[in-house]
Amino acid sequence: MLRKAMSDVFKYFFEPRSVAIIGASKTPGKAGNEILVNLLANGYPGKIYPVNPSGEEIMGLPSYRSVKEIPGSVDLAVFVVPAEKTLEPLRECAEKKVPAAVIASGGYAEVDGQGALRQEELLAVARTSGMRIIGPNTSGLSSTPASLTTTFFPLGKIRRGPISYIAQTGNFATHTMKWIMTAENFGVARVAGLGNKIDVEDAEVLEYLGRDPETKAILMYVEGFRQARRFFEVAREVTRKKPVIILKGGRTKAGAERVLTHTASLAGDDAIFDAACRQAGIARVSRYFDLINVAKGIAFQAIPAGRRVSSLAPSGALGVVVADACESLGLKMAHHSEATLKRLREISASWVALSNPVDMSAIAPILGPVKAYKEVIELLLQDDGVDAVVAILLASPNIPAEIYSSLPELSSHFPQKPIYVSFTGDKSYIDQARAFLEQRSLPVFLPLEDALETLLVLCRCREALVRQR
Amino acid sequence: MLRKAMSDVFKYFFEPRSVAIIGASKTPGKAGNEILVNLLANGYPGKIYPVNPSGEEIMGLPSYRSVKEIPGSVDLAVFVVPAEKTLEPLRECAEKKVPAAVIASGGYAEVDGQGALRQEELLAVARTSGMRIIGPNTSGLSSTPASLTTTFFPLGKIRRGPISYIAQTGNFATHTMKWIMTAENFGVARVAGLGNKIDVEDAEVLEYLGRDPETKAILMYVEGFRQARRFFEVAREVTRKKPVIILKGGRTKAGAERVLTHTASLAGDDAIFDAACRQAGIARVSRYFDLINVAKGIAFQAIPAGRRVSSLAPSGALGVVVADACESLGLKMAHHSEATLKRLREISASWVALSNPVDMSAIAPILGPVKAYKEVIELLLQDDGVDAVVAILLASPNIPAEIYSSLPELSSHFPQKPIYVSFTGDKSYIDQARAFLEQRSLPVFLPLEDALETLLVLCRCREALVRQR
Repeated sequence: MLRKAMSDVFKYFFEPRSVAIIGASKTPGKAGNEILVNLLANGYPGKIYPVNPSGEEIMGLPSYRSVKEIPGSVDLAVFVVPAEKTLEPLRECAEKKVPAAVIASGGYAEVDGQGALRQEELLAVARTSGMRIIGPNTSGLSSTPASLTTTFFPLGKIRRGPISYIAQTGNFATHTMKWIMTAENFGVARVAGLGNKIDVEDAEVLEYLGRDPETKAILMYVEGFRQARRFFEVAREVTRKKPVIILKGGRTKAGAERVLTHTASLAGDDAIFDAACRQAGIARVSRYFDLINVAKGIAFQAIPAGRRVSSLAPSGALGVVVADACESLGLKMAHHSEATLKRLREISASWVALSNPVDMSAIAPILGPVKAYKEVIELLLQDDGVDAVVAILLASPNIPAEIYSSLPELSSHFPQKPIYVSFTGDKSYIDQARAFLEQRSLPVFLPLEDALETLLVLCRCREALVRQR
Repeated sequence: MLRKAMSDVFKYFFEPRSVAIIGASKTPGKAGNEILVNLLANGYPGKIYPVNPSGEEIMGLPSYRSVKEIPGSVDLAVFVVPAEKTLEPLRECAEKKVPAAVIASGGYAEVDGQGALRQEELLAVARTSGMRIIGPNTSGLSSTPASLTTTFFPLGKIRRGPISYIAQTGNFATHTMKWIMTAENFGVARVAGLGNKIDVEDAEVLEYLGRDPETKAILMYVEGFRQARRFFEVAREVTRKKPVIILKGGRTKAGAERVLTHTASLAGDDAIFDAACRQAGIARVSRYFDLINVAKGIAFQAIPAGRRVSSLAPSGALGVVVADACESLGLKMAHHSEATLKRLREISASWVALSNPVDMSAIAPILGPVKAYKEVIELLLQDDGVDAVVAILLASPNIPAEIYSSLPELSSHFPQKPIYVSFTGDKSYIDQARAFLEQRSLPVFLPLEDALETLLVLCRCREALVRQR
């Protein structure tokens, strides 16, 4: 039987009309129970078929003693049974012509030789039946457009948004996703944890996400590829359409040693990896949290057209800090136009030397803080020599919220120019402001250098898009 | 008249028995009012003499029409009157033999030539009388051991602790101090914002803080020195006793241009500055927030004896991320001793390859999370090949708080080995854990790379201490 073309099969992974849970459980805390809790919390609208030898009702759903007993067709089968109990129901799925399977449970090549043999047996079923397998040893998939998750880590309702992740680690779809759900305000489209990758690999998922209208950008955590050439070929196509950002685990000797013990991947020569990324238009990042910050930047604002940054700061020192960070990263402090300078001169205290970042302490006392911040940010957005605005605002109980609450409307008039916000001052004020702004698509970065580091990554993405056209 | 030796005069700045506020005001929101609010909130126990032409009672304190009317002696005079109204009361202070003055108000050299002349007049008073002046144009001083602050930005009660700051910016003693008060859990000893530095300069304050038993480390934001040679001479002495950490504003061309407009300092050649710091044993940092993170590390834990880091992480991927961060920064992943490896082998799943960072997902399911984390952290602390432990913990409502609540006691048995903590997972769990831990002197760093970057800075401080002995 011919294996299904990727475009077809990923529909079954990310938009299945029905899901069977092999190893569904009534016992709270067990993976086979958490998956159901997560599925129901996300409001998955398709058919759910719990499979459990007891045949009891589970969480209000009738369960089935075996895959063979499931009355309807199954698009996606999720396995949470132990490794030694997976092969038989997988064969039943193949007989039932289930097109896609996620094998969550571990106990395969990551454990020992016997496990390696076991996963070969699974792969053989896939090869002969045409079924495609993600995993084993993976926290699986989430797909918010389909209200779907196969994750067994307690997540609750996953926020929908334009960011997709591919991660060679269970950590991402579980712990990091929990952080995104509880600490961030952006949402995700598709999240794929590929586990041992016996069948489906990064390149295929990347290709699917490249064509996926729900996905605005793809962020990846990767330790190594089996088919690196294929991956970079696909990436070169995808980065013509949308940003691809990678954090590579194992970029140092110590990291590479750990990679070997983690996913048995060969981390490879980092200089070669780096060159391949550059040729393929992939932006690399080096800190784990960059995968969050960059996602936030892309989810909420346009990708900047260039590297010319304009900024405003509530004090001279933070202006210096912004200028130092900009230049040391390779961004440029924008030269403001004559019109901008003229207006800044009109509204600034006479003693201040006009500069970028604009020193708000020379304007706020004259215009009042609300009018000052609004007018200056609008001025900077209007300036043709400015690609992005980084606004550092002062947070204090005696500063009116109107210094930031006008930003969403201002931003809507300049959809092509990203505005990134940071704050200095009172934490509870900042928390409140950040919630307000991010719920209205204005990203807030703390510490302020994170705003500039994120802008730089997006500039590199933009340059890749432009270069490849 | 001979000018007072530094040791004497800084007692008047940082431990004054009486303070006069020239320009005290009844009007909420005015600087002359906020200073009094701050002084009272901090419970300053000495005499407070508000000076105001009206002579009215201010916040329950009798006020005086002029300095001459103040009945008792004054150790410290704080000026919040406009520049053109400062000279006369300053002369009166000189007549009254007030030894120390903070001139908060602006309107001097930072404004125009007339302002520059004005500050020369102030300096002349100081030179002839022996009075010492901090400022003008500064948010002033805080000194928690004396329950004192001269800051006019609303701060409330400032938390006492072992960290002192010297900052060439008003931003630090105001906005950044507000962040420290509201978002951090460590405390400060002395905070000095030096403003235009017409008289007292960084070198003198650094020398005082070097001898100050309340000060465990000195962190500085500097844009430029007038007497660089003197400063580095003093620093070379101080860094034999305690860490000195500097963020230098104007380290790039763009930053240096901003420095010129901010404090009219000449930022100077950064390579020369860097070499001077290295010779003097000063650790440089490059991000503004490093001034917070490094303070937290020093305030709560010992300075590591060396660069050998041991770590544990809840997933293989975060182990890789830690190892990459360690090596790329120039820290070393510790080689665990035979005894450590033997015990790790006993308590780990058979399939896992032992490594550093320790993969807790191979131990927690066997020992249970509470026992697993406690035992592993203790093992790593006991290992003579380990200088510091970075513990990455999993935060999830279903993980018991005991995985971290035993850390303070564990840490107390190994006072020379710092433990830094980070988390992955649920934000509200992390917030709760961080409050618990930091209130018990265990610092929490998010993102995790901040823990390693902070350790590196402290390793450089330690190496400076050792090299100079």
